[in-house]
Amino acid sequence: MDAVWIMHRDEGNSRILGIGNMDRCITHTEAGDRGAGEADGRWGPGSKLGIIGGLGDMGRLFARFFAARGYQVSVSDPAGIERNEALVRESDLVLFAVPLHHTTAIIRALVPITRPGQLLMDLTSLKRQPVEEMLRSPAAVVGLHPMFGGQVGSFAGQTLIACPVRIEDRDWAVLKRLFEASGLRIKQCTIEEHDRMMSIVQVLFHVNTMLVGRVLRELGVDIDQTLEYTSPSYLLEMDLLGRIFAQNSELYAAITQLNPHTGEILEAMREAVTSYQDWYRARDLQAFIADFQQSSSHLGPFCRRAYRESSEILEYVVRRKHELRLNGAQPEADDAEKVPQSGIEP
Amino acid sequence: MDAVWIMHRDEGNSRILGIGNMDRCITHTEAGDRGAGEADGRWGPGSKLGIIGGLGDMGRLFARFFAARGYQVSVSDPAGIERNEALVRESDLVLFAVPLHHTTAIIRALVPITRPGQLLMDLTSLKRQPVEEMLRSPAAVVGLHPMFGGQVGSFAGQTLIACPVRIEDRDWAVLKRLFEASGLRIKQCTIEEHDRMMSIVQVLFHVNTMLVGRVLRELGVDIDQTLEYTSPSYLLEMDLLGRIFAQNSELYAAITQLNPHTGEILEAMREAVTSYQDWYRARDLQAFIADFQQSSSHLGPFCRRAYRESSEILEYVVRRKHELRLNGAQPEADDAEKVPQSGIEP
Repeated sequence: MDAVWIMHRDEGNSRILGIGNMDRCITHTEAGDRGAGEADGRWGPGSKLGIIGGLGDMGRLFARFFAARGYQVSVSDPAGIERNEALVRESDLVLFAVPLHHTTAIIRALVPITRPGQLLMDLTSLKRQPVEEMLRSPAAVVGLHPMFGGQVGSFAGQTLIACPVRIEDRDWAVLKRLFEASGLRIKQCTIEEHDRMMSIVQVLFHVNTMLVGRVLRELGVDIDQTLEYTSPSYLLEMDLLGRIFAQNSELYAAITQLNPHTGEILEAMREAVTSYQDWYRARDLQAFIADFQQSSSHLGPFCRRAYRESSEILEYVVRRKHELRLNGAQPEADDAEKVPQSGIEP
Repeated sequence: MDAVWIMHRDEGNSRILGIGNMDRCITHTEAGDRGAGEADGRWGPGSKLGIIGGLGDMGRLFARFFAARGYQVSVSDPAGIERNEALVRESDLVLFAVPLHHTTAIIRALVPITRPGQLLMDLTSLKRQPVEEMLRSPAAVVGLHPMFGGQVGSFAGQTLIACPVRIEDRDWAVLKRLFEASGLRIKQCTIEEHDRMMSIVQVLFHVNTMLVGRVLRELGVDIDQTLEYTSPSYLLEMDLLGRIFAQNSELYAAITQLNPHTGEILEAMREAVTSYQDWYRARDLQAFIADFQQSSSHLGPFCRRAYRESSEILEYVVRRKHELRLNGAQPEADDAEKVPQSGIEP
């Protein structure tokens, strides 16, 4: 357990929340004691919500969300076992907002003190292991996965994947309505569907980003030099690539390597590259054309839609870059602190 | 030579330009006969410009550009050899705006009738072969590569790569100023630098897109289903992927496979995937973390800049999608005709 590292990070962030009492490392919001009525379901507004990892970006985002809706929110630093235990004992809902590669161990340590009548939820990028650990508890269990970073300004238009694994429909409905009222899109599925989908949405794309980053490095490519030759598409591709590499290496390694489907993805990638090398050596341009057309057919009408949508986005990118250049902007300073090094960024 | 296919396309497009005389397939603009003064350089406004492939998207874009600046612009359909020859004979400047995999053959057929005092230019995505062919002529030679598609609304903020291979400085300066005055960014380099840079900006990213498309297909992934689980980053990645597959397979096959550096790129990709498979089998999460961190260090301060810029773009994407959803938009209809199937899209 990287206890010291987590401590340090959370202490840094806690200042923003204005939490003073780091001895207990639990803080109460001003939400008051409004009781949960029948109409609110079992874990509606007024309930006591404890967030383990509530001082990280994502934990703070959800702390603000629930506090603003009348929950009594308390947060703890996951590195302090005793504090976590106190929080679990006093909460009606427990939300785990901790780094992916520590989640299983943290849940496992706390499950023995959970009780019937509680609701356990987590916010991590994979669902099978955390949910299995939570299911060892007698409590209700909902797995959540926010498809956005902890630094978004608003929930509106963002997607939250939800796996309501063990919870009464009416209790889950209350929470779901609460989220949807903020503009969040709730995508409900099983934990198997979730992890399978994440093998595409996250593993394939992130492994691929790691691969391109590695090739750029191995070939000794100077990025700033390539940017002088840029097309808007390349600029955007590079922005999305740099965005990943600005973030936490442990998080991305865990997301891509702990998914049960990663082996298949890597094997399909190996087969693809091997075919491309064979065709290239044979100067078989026709094989590349056929491969391209088959993929294009598989993607179907999505391609035309993507073309139109990306054109709009690329026009925006060109316009913004042109404006910045005309204004002589030098967008270099003070970027470091704006990059979350510990968030749960999909 | 795909003569029939090109014919058909050009006939379709010619209606938009309003060119009636398809027998000669050469049309004059209303620009008139303003003579090229000394201040305009040898190939400045007033000169006669012939565009081979001038009925394609890119050819028409440059035809409009030069015509609006006082050039006497004529265009031809590259499938008609006699018409091309007439155009070359009567022009001061000849611009080749033809598909990449036909360029060399088209230039080779026309070079014997070029003469000293002419300027030859091309617009293709690779420079070595087209420029070598043009250099067999006694004419001046400039290789150009627009880093944008033939359907852009404006040159402002776009990049044009230029390799002024054989031309007097003052003559090139006139053309360069003309381009820059429209907001185009001119990136000047040698043909070797160009093709090397395109092995990154185009080959690496496009091969990679082909690879992801192929893996999605091999794994039988339903794209619309994955989009329900989407993060804004995934959405944007998918839009850029679909954008490529909406376009011409021959063009992308040629761009990625005819570059002299493609072999290196494919080999670096194979090594990367092989390492990832080794580390994955050995459950060596630390190796992935180290690889990620090394790439991140190689990319350096670019990552923070990319994070900030991509955040702004992703916010725009989320906002637009949310607006469209609120408005109940069904963006499906009539997309097909908006996708260029023959443009020179970088």
